Amino acid sequence: MRNLLFNISYKGTRYHGYQVQENAHTVACEIQNAIERILNKREGIVGCSRTDTGVHANEYYFNMKTESKISVDKLKYALNSLLPSDIAINSCREVPIDFHARYLAVGKEYIYKIINTPVKNPFMEDTALHWKYEMDLDRLNNAAAYFVGTHDFKSFCSKSDVEDTVRQIYYARFHREGDMVIFTIRGNGFLYKMVRTVVGTLLGVSAGRFEPEDIKRIIDGKNRELAGKTAQPHGLYLNRVFYDEEDICEE
Amino acid sequence: MRNLLFNISYKGTRYHGYQVQENAHTVACEIQNAIERILNKREGIVGCSRTDTGVHANEYYFNMKTESKISVDKLKYALNSLLPSDIAINSCREVPIDFHARYLAVGKEYIYKIINTPVKNPFMEDTALHWKYEMDLDRLNNAAAYFVGTHDFKSFCSKSDVEDTVRQIYYARFHREGDMVIFTIRGNGFLYKMVRTVVGTLLGVSAGRFEPEDIKRIIDGKNRELAGKTAQPHGLYLNRVFYDEEDICEE
Repeated sequence: MRNLLFNISYKGTRYHGYQVQENAHTVACEIQNAIERILNKREGIVGCSRTDTGVHANEYYFNMKTESKISVDKLKYALNSLLPSDIAINSCREVPIDFHARYLAVGKEYIYKIINTPVKNPFMEDTALHWKYEMDLDRLNNAAAYFVGTHDFKSFCSKSDVEDTVRQIYYARFHREGDMVIFTIRGNGFLYKMVRTVVGTLLGVSAGRFEPEDIKRIIDGKNRELAGKTAQPHGLYLNRVFYDEEDICEE
Repeated sequence: MRNLLFNISYKGTRYHGYQVQENAHTVACEIQNAIERILNKREGIVGCSRTDTGVHANEYYFNMKTESKISVDKLKYALNSLLPSDIAINSCREVPIDFHARYLAVGKEYIYKIINTPVKNPFMEDTALHWKYEMDLDRLNNAAAYFVGTHDFKSFCSKSDVEDTVRQIYYARFHREGDMVIFTIRGNGFLYKMVRTVVGTLLGVSAGRFEPEDIKRIIDGKNRELAGKTAQPHGLYLNRVFYDEEDICEE
């Protein structure tokens, strides 16, 4: 038995998220179907994270235990040929048999892309949020700084039955690349719709609905109704997933 | 009566080209429908060019004669609100009453985008051709240089009943921006599928099927069968359209 770890990218527009669901077209389902065609056997795969409908991934990991002896290069090549053009297998490697893509992820980085132009960009309709109003990045970064640290993020969670809503955020900042404003957030984990609610609230700061200092009050209030809207999914990308090198490397 | 000139961009993926056709979903049709909703009247529009199914435009012009007194700013704003997210109105201005977007275009520039990476990029499936083999831009530019000048481009035209197949090409070159290889071609006019056939032939040079010097032989042969394949439409963009300033400006 071998355990294979895959690094993939996908454009989430056509999918009901990553994870397998009944009667829904998902990334995991496409991958399992392609693997089945190659190995003539349906294998279970373990994804590093759930992603919502329309959310993208620049870097996503899943692992698969298999009895197959196929080489990792051949498997990568065959999968890229069979998979639709919006899912790419970037790499495939063998990892220790007890490696688990979800349990062993020690951190994640998301980015949220905002195309900040007076007129919409027809080439980014699915891959960035269009925001036509001026954005003051200093003001936004003053607000974003309140998220950094270990906090109870109950105000930014769209599910009411989560027991532990404390998460540690390492980094939360906006930067500009031409017409594109990119928000980057890195932490040890994220609650359901947390990044989109963080972004929606920060866009509320941009629109003047909140002041930067309000973020502290919203976090401390531990009430979803205090925060802003949930930003649309199509600007969100899972950008990096962090593992401990010793978990990932074969001895 | 006023004559209005619109500068627009569109992602061609969902459309059967720009021009109005029966029973086909086209860019012009979307625009005419939106204008009709705003002005309560169906107006004729004159596009600068035909574009094929799946071909994009960074800059495209059409003009419209109308009795309406609506301000150009209001019309631009209303159109951008009504049009789907893959069509954008960049500007709208009043031009002399005899201005004609197609007849008065004195030149055009197309670009062809090639994403040159070992693995496909899931975010560019509709907007760039994926080419996984190494590209020698010096070799390609040696080949591209043969297109510059005034030539009979019969070998690069997919229609057999065109009378005048002579066109003047001012510029034809590849450059690289990170993983993206971009071919730019500028001329006084282009034949049906000419740019895609030029690109398909140049990709033949890249693949070693042709030598750079073969381009001269292919042009001189005046026979479509000598040239390479017609490159796929999704990498092609109408990038600029040139008019004489005196035609476009009100006195």
